[in-house]
Amino acid sequence: MSGIVQRSVDRRRGPNWLPDVDQVVEEAPLEIRLSGSPLAVVMRTPGHDADLVLGFALTEGILLDPAETTSVAAVDDNRVELALADGVVVDPTRFQRNFYSTSSCGVCGKASIDAVRVTAGAVGRDLRMPADLLPRLPEVMRSHQANFSETGGLHAAAAFTATGELVGLREDVGRHNAVDKLVGMLAPRFWRFDDFALLVSGRISFEVVQKAAVAGFSIVCGISAASSLAVEMGAELGMTIVGFLRGDDFTVYSGRERLT
Amino acid sequence: MSGIVQRSVDRRRGPNWLPDVDQVVEEAPLEIRLSGSPLAVVMRTPGHDADLVLGFALTEGILLDPAETTSVAAVDDNRVELALADGVVVDPTRFQRNFYSTSSCGVCGKASIDAVRVTAGAVGRDLRMPADLLPRLPEVMRSHQANFSETGGLHAAAAFTATGELVGLREDVGRHNAVDKLVGMLAPRFWRFDDFALLVSGRISFEVVQKAAVAGFSIVCGISAASSLAVEMGAELGMTIVGFLRGDDFTVYSGRERLT
Repeated sequence: MSGIVQRSVDRRRGPNWLPDVDQVVEEAPLEIRLSGSPLAVVMRTPGHDADLVLGFALTEGILLDPAETTSVAAVDDNRVELALADGVVVDPTRFQRNFYSTSSCGVCGKASIDAVRVTAGAVGRDLRMPADLLPRLPEVMRSHQANFSETGGLHAAAAFTATGELVGLREDVGRHNAVDKLVGMLAPRFWRFDDFALLVSGRISFEVVQKAAVAGFSIVCGISAASSLAVEMGAELGMTIVGFLRGDDFTVYSGRERLT
Repeated sequence: MSGIVQRSVDRRRGPNWLPDVDQVVEEAPLEIRLSGSPLAVVMRTPGHDADLVLGFALTEGILLDPAETTSVAAVDDNRVELALADGVVVDPTRFQRNFYSTSSCGVCGKASIDAVRVTAGAVGRDLRMPADLLPRLPEVMRSHQANFSETGGLHAAAAFTATGELVGLREDVGRHNAVDKLVGMLAPRFWRFDDFALLVSGRISFEVVQKAAVAGFSIVCGISAASSLAVEMGAELGMTIVGFLRGDDFTVYSGRERLT
């Protein structure tokens, strides 16, 4: 199966050792290249690399629209090349915030939120979802996860319609990569995603909300907690942020008006 | 409590809404400055920032020893300045691999492993731990975690002696930050940590193993799965990598000889 490797292990079962073979989730570096130059290196689970690169370029504000690229193609197993369409000029200051060092966005959350607001534009106001639909989404996501049950080591991100239909799902060892793969998978057909809700399998970090906002998701749900900056950004951008989506219960940090 | 903020939320309990106050784990950017210049920006849970910066500098190979710095001091709430001791020259190529773009380590895992091996030097061979001690470590860690039970959103990293005594513990919204805070906390007294085992609360990523190796931990345990590159690097460096440490059971990916 893609993204999984076999590995000999020793299981400890109570006082006993048991030789076994484990399904280990694959993690490997991917170099993202833009018009012939290296742009970034991300650690990811191999598979759907073109989706990852397109999604990364969109959620980081490097591309503003999928039409700004003519192709996203593997150079080899660990390098993907993104080609810009004629006349598209990428402004490096647009993604400076994502590079270590000399961050142009400053170091306060407020400045970062302003930067994202500029890139994200207005978040959709019209999406509504029945509140009693939300508890069903994690089970739908899990039932479509190919790899998680094998390894226990993968994050998932899924998009749903307002009526709870699964639009797409991607998995990765990195929580942000799962979101980027999902975005890259759906972008050619649906960009931006004003009509969809995003569900992530783990916690809701600042960067998950940031990527979701840029992609147009106005409802972001997570199985675990949200961080303070994720909540702050979600509230300031007018997003609906839902955490601890487990069983019949959940916690709404902001934007309850979208849950009918 | 440090690292926690209060936030008004709406709880969904079955079909009902319940207004409540949630304890949200804090996440905010920290600028790490080296000798007056910005070096990196990390998203972290505020608190123990000096530990984080010292640990980051050590595990990323920027400093080879805590004695290479004369002070680690807050400039303001979101900036920490690391001052180099007289005569210490930092070679920027030593940490290029951690910067997006133009990675000097190449993009294959093998090259990264070689780079870490050079920085890490030899991993200690002598540490031994009774196998039946391991299942107790997560409970000891949890009982000392100040914030997790409040928020459910924090990673933890803890160091243990060969007899299972807790040496130190740190928490952070970021899994790597928890390791760096732990390293920075212990480094002034114990660097390097050849006599200690590391336990992390989540999964064992490549970067966790990398940081552990540089810090001298030869036993790395996690509550969840290890990734393929984490296992590969652990095996190549002669480390003991233990995953799925839950109840009485666990899985040993490499280095079982240290578990007696």
